[in-house]
Amino acid sequence: MLGSLPAHVIHQISFLLSPMSFSLDVFAPVVAVLGLGWSFVFWSGVQRGGNGTPAMQKVANAIRTGSNAFVRRQYKTIAILTVIVGLGMTVAYGVTGGAEGWVKGYEVGGSFLLGAILSGVAGVVSMIVATRANLKTADASTHGLNAALRMALRSGTVSAIVITALSLLGISGLYLFYKFGLGRAVETIPVLIVGYGFGASFVALFAQLGGGIYTKAADVGADLVGKIEAGIPEDDPRNPAVIADLVGDNVGDCAGRGADLFESISAENIGAMVLGVALFPVFGLKGILFPLVFRALGLIASIIGVYTVKVKKNDSPMKAMTRGFWVTAILTTGALFVCSAWMLHDVPPPPEGVPALTLLDMLKNMGTTQNSAVWFFFAGLAGVLTSIAFVYITDYYTGKQHRPVQAIAKASETGHATNIIAGTAIGMESTGLTVLAVCVALFSSYWFGTQTGLDHGGIYGTAVATMGMLAVVGYVLAMDMFGPITDNAGGIVEMSKAPENMRLVTDELDACGNTTKALTKGYAVGSAALAAFLLFSAFLEEADLTVVDLAKVEVFIGAFLGAMVVFFFTSLAIRAVGRAAGVIVEEVRRQFREKKGIMEGRDEPDYAACVDIATRAALKEMVLPGIVAVLAPIIVGVVFRAEAAAGLLMVGTIVGVILAAYLNNAGGAWDNAKKFIEGGAHGGKRSPAHQAAVTGDTVGDPFKDTAGPSLHVLIKLFSTLTLALATLFI
Amino acid sequence: MLGSLPAHVIHQISFLLSPMSFSLDVFAPVVAVLGLGWSFVFWSGVQRGGNGTPAMQKVANAIRTGSNAFVRRQYKTIAILTVIVGLGMTVAYGVTGGAEGWVKGYEVGGSFLLGAILSGVAGVVSMIVATRANLKTADASTHGLNAALRMALRSGTVSAIVITALSLLGISGLYLFYKFGLGRAVETIPVLIVGYGFGASFVALFAQLGGGIYTKAADVGADLVGKIEAGIPEDDPRNPAVIADLVGDNVGDCAGRGADLFESISAENIGAMVLGVALFPVFGLKGILFPLVFRALGLIASIIGVYTVKVKKNDSPMKAMTRGFWVTAILTTGALFVCSAWMLHDVPPPPEGVPALTLLDMLKNMGTTQNSAVWFFFAGLAGVLTSIAFVYITDYYTGKQHRPVQAIAKASETGHATNIIAGTAIGMESTGLTVLAVCVALFSSYWFGTQTGLDHGGIYGTAVATMGMLAVVGYVLAMDMFGPITDNAGGIVEMSKAPENMRLVTDELDACGNTTKALTKGYAVGSAALAAFLLFSAFLEEADLTVVDLAKVEVFIGAFLGAMVVFFFTSLAIRAVGRAAGVIVEEVRRQFREKKGIMEGRDEPDYAACVDIATRAALKEMVLPGIVAVLAPIIVGVVFRAEAAAGLLMVGTIVGVILAAYLNNAGGAWDNAKKFIEGGAHGGKRSPAHQAAVTGDTVGDPFKDTAGPSLHVLIKLFSTLTLALATLFI
Repeated sequence: MLGSLPAHVIHQISFLLSPMSFSLDVFAPVVAVLGLGWSFVFWSGVQRGGNGTPAMQKVANAIRTGSNAFVRRQYKTIAILTVIVGLGMTVAYGVTGGAEGWVKGYEVGGSFLLGAILSGVAGVVSMIVATRANLKTADASTHGLNAALRMALRSGTVSAIVITALSLLGISGLYLFYKFGLGRAVETIPVLIVGYGFGASFVALFAQLGGGIYTKAADVGADLVGKIEAGIPEDDPRNPAVIADLVGDNVGDCAGRGADLFESISAENIGAMVLGVALFPVFGLKGILFPLVFRALGLIASIIGVYTVKVKKNDSPMKAMTRGFWVTAILTTGALFVCSAWMLHDVPPPPEGVPALTLLDMLKNMGTTQNSAVWFFFAGLAGVLTSIAFVYITDYYTGKQHRPVQAIAKASETGHATNIIAGTAIGMESTGLTVLAVCVALFSSYWFGTQTGLDHGGIYGTAVATMGMLAVVGYVLAMDMFGPITDNAGGIVEMSKAPENMRLVTDELDACGNTTKALTKGYAVGSAALAAFLLFSAFLEEADLTVVDLAKVEVFIGAFLGAMVVFFFTSLAIRAVGRAAGVIVEEVRRQFREKKGIMEGRDEPDYAACVDIATRAALKEMVLPGIVAVLAPIIVGVVFRAEAAAGLLMVGTIVGVILAAYLNNAGGAWDNAKKFIEGGAHGGKRSPAHQAAVTGDTVGDPFKDTAGPSLHVLIKLFSTLTLALATLFI
Repeated sequence: MLGSLPAHVIHQISFLLSPMSFSLDVFAPVVAVLGLGWSFVFWSGVQRGGNGTPAMQKVANAIRTGSNAFVRRQYKTIAILTVIVGLGMTVAYGVTGGAEGWVKGYEVGGSFLLGAILSGVAGVVSMIVATRANLKTADASTHGLNAALRMALRSGTVSAIVITALSLLGISGLYLFYKFGLGRAVETIPVLIVGYGFGASFVALFAQLGGGIYTKAADVGADLVGKIEAGIPEDDPRNPAVIADLVGDNVGDCAGRGADLFESISAENIGAMVLGVALFPVFGLKGILFPLVFRALGLIASIIGVYTVKVKKNDSPMKAMTRGFWVTAILTTGALFVCSAWMLHDVPPPPEGVPALTLLDMLKNMGTTQNSAVWFFFAGLAGVLTSIAFVYITDYYTGKQHRPVQAIAKASETGHATNIIAGTAIGMESTGLTVLAVCVALFSSYWFGTQTGLDHGGIYGTAVATMGMLAVVGYVLAMDMFGPITDNAGGIVEMSKAPENMRLVTDELDACGNTTKALTKGYAVGSAALAAFLLFSAFLEEADLTVVDLAKVEVFIGAFLGAMVVFFFTSLAIRAVGRAAGVIVEEVRRQFREKKGIMEGRDEPDYAACVDIATRAALKEMVLPGIVAVLAPIIVGVVFRAEAAAGLLMVGTIVGVILAAYLNNAGGAWDNAKKFIEGGAHGGKRSPAHQAAVTGDTVGDPFKDTAGPSLHVLIKLFSTLTLALATLFI
């Protein structure tokens, strides 16, 4: 298998990597720190960009002030909830488990707190970067498409690196603390840090919910009064809610998604490390640290991928982005190959006297099917391919050039109702390929894993697949953060009445950003599904369960309740947007009524009042769905015990993945059907078809930007929460 | 417990019932035949009604002709599919199982065919009755509300009795044939007739799908061109699609729902009988025949309930209907008490020489908690209470006087999008109470069952609860059939330009019918959930499974696919309506274009052309979702074997129940929000809020009348299909 590579290349790789095996423990944190350093390189590049006209700065300042105000108040609320839950958990362990219980309580509570804090930092950093990058990107748009694209993408990469690196640092830090600080046995450590994932999920849930409610309430509110009642275009400075809308992009899409993906990575790493313990007898330390090392290499691949993005002549920005994604995926596959060969190699070591295997030997051994490394490589490859599949599935269902979006656009000709019916049908249809892709990934990686003949080989195969899928997360995050930055840049250009050529650039980037946002959501759903399966297995280990028997009445009830909670949570999230939007509509109407000059452009609307009202409404509305999500698994676990909690967890995840795919894809398709019509099809702007399409787009807003992304977090919250509390349910 | 009843009453009950224990086998078929006789009494009463004016007859004739044409062609398609599947199944058993396999194949195939035929007959009879009763009800409306109400309800009762009695006759007939004709051991018989349930489900699926697509395609199509484009009111004779719309009520709501509930009853009976075998050592024949006997008594209770319905002064028709429901529920509870005491009594028989226990003794023994009959009575009572709970839950979420519908109406003020968002949120919220009610019923009846201390007692407890819930099915069916009959009567009155006083009567009945239709759907979802749990257990017995371990990767994949298929099927059903409606819209537009005189009332539109086009479109569209539903469990069963099929079945059922509740309740709430606004709220008819509410109502149409009811059938199809094919999956 390796014969095709020139010998000197192999030698160099071998030379570069072998010293690291001496310091495996610190490989990941070192890469993380280097990555953070690299993010400063990007950031200083961004800082050097221009700051535009005073008019642009004024808009950008208003957005920044609003975003800061929201995030400050939001994280204050979240901090209070976090302390309550952290203390409650520690006490619950202490009270039920005596002296040993208190130790467990401190461990779980402490790692919970660390996960929560780092998740919060990840969200805040994303928001800070985005609220500076928007102005820089707007300014760069005077220098043409490539300059603006580079500015937005590199800013996004700063956040992406920080999020990925923080996650690595947090887990590695806990690991090193337990190993060297407390002298714990290596194979007991992964279970000690399960609280970390719960902490990350807990903060991510509220960050995504609060931000998601804020962004869509502001968006829907602004649209309802602005576009529909007053007949003014999107991002018109006369609309008092327009700044709130732009703030929403930062707090919902950046801060929320940042916290979301921070916890995806963390949860997956912990799940994979817990499973690595099962293979400790075979791979030793390497099996436990494999996820961290491979993730670190994935981060490097992502940074390289970002460097390759450049729009060529007659090329769309999206094509350039996709090229970068492919570069990252291919580099990741290479890293996977080397990592597997080196760390998951089970060919017996040579007898005494014969020199130990070098990395070169190990790579050469990748030609033999008796080597577990080969099979795990295939499993990981299945994961990488799944990440690619999700990009294409999402693109098919939400891209303008394919059947689904065009069918919705066509249905808009017969009115609002047929637009909604068509979008609903398309969204539900999209769950088909989504689920098939997850099932193929699970089954094939499990099968590859069983071919190793190792105990727990199958399940570790799915773990490696999950790592493969999440290895490209750095690049995906950068693409995702790119979206709200360009959206904001467009808003700044529009509101500051900048010249037409700038607007053309930001419009093109904005369209590309919409697509990358949609793709990220598809990717997030798929990775959540795989990561959840990993966490199930970790939960079963931790709760001493060998089966989850759905035929038992209490497990079936747990499963039924799990599915129901997902729907109920979605209902609360959607309704929260409706209610918060209603409050904003009232405020905008009040301003129009009391200050007649606004519409004529004489008076300046009170943007801050809208921002403030949206903040209060979103924070109020995020609490109930959050509490439902946290309490449901605890109640089922305490009343019906661990096996029923597993039922809730698994079926809740299945339903959550499917419902999220439905909500995200329906929302994305409605959005693009509207854009397709605005491009001139079916009568173009202001035609009856366009009005119907606007209805679909508005319905899709809370679907795809509030409920859907919150469900990704909910799924992982279910897993990490039950995992952290597992021993209380036995 | 029985001390409170006067002794002579107990004596009489005892006297009446004890001779029947000699002929337990034939009790149910005898009651069924008597019931059929009684339905002729009702029918001849209906026949004596007047036939209205020639104008009314003309409309009614057109509806009848259209309905007949559709049903004839639909059942021809279904017959072909049935023969293919029946033969395929027999051959599959024969080829894989040798000589024994062919025997099994004939048994399963034969009972499949019988179930299919009777389910078809049930559907056709409902349609025939409804297409005569509509005219009679329209005529009776000249004699006032009570006369029209009685006419519609008694017509509905004819169908209700026929459906219930046919189901009893079919299963009893197979039972008697195997016992006396082939001399089989009693306890082997239930498993031999599992094909019957599959046959019933198979036909019900296509009947409900085809009818559901037809009715909503015609409705949406007629509304889109009529109300929205041409601005003419509902049921206006100038609309070429109006007859197709009225035909739809008969073929979708009557024939479809008839087949649906026929198979609910059949599936539940078979599931309960299979479980009864597990208790054969304790209760003997009585345990197996309990479901049939109790169901027969439930039929009698339902007939009595119908007789009590009468609108008092200042009373709404709905109140009168609810009173009848309570009478039925209370009578059923009495029947349950006696049946449990008599047939599920495990106090040991007296020693030799002492006379055997009389029914009086058995009833007296209901005071002791060591008697299993007491606990099973409580379990059955839980079922009866669940049926009542579902009526009230559905009423809360879809009734005009409660918060949910009013919230949607209020949201309509801000436009189409907020109406849809609010309805979606309400529909999803409604899954909360729905699932809680099912879980409470399952858990409590299981717990009661375990208190008997018998092996399989818990699961038999849930079986008795299911019987309790389905015991009132006769009355519920009568209420349900009442809906489309009054809807049609209203259409006939409207189209024949009958006097205002008649229209007032039919309008009031129509509103009541809308509510009863919604309630029936809630009831159908709940009973499907309970019946499915029963069928799971039967499947596990039949497939020799003791656990369904969701932690196994192939079971998890089966579960994932099950949930996905439910969404995918829903997507296909909804899209089918959209597509078929599009075809009708084209045809109506063509007629308006080519015959200018239609709109001015000079030319008569070509109703038959619309009927014909709707028929062809609906039949074409019903095939794909039907095939997906049938193939999915077979593929999973064959590829991943029985345990994965169980995963598909169980999680598919959970998701199906929840999604059906969402679709039904959202649709019902949208419908009534529109009616609420039409009653004068939020600006009344033709206000912007009303337009938004019409959008919601139109979106809700395929939700609540095509996809939702088809999902009820899908759930039971999954169960009965896997049950019938269980041994092929081992």
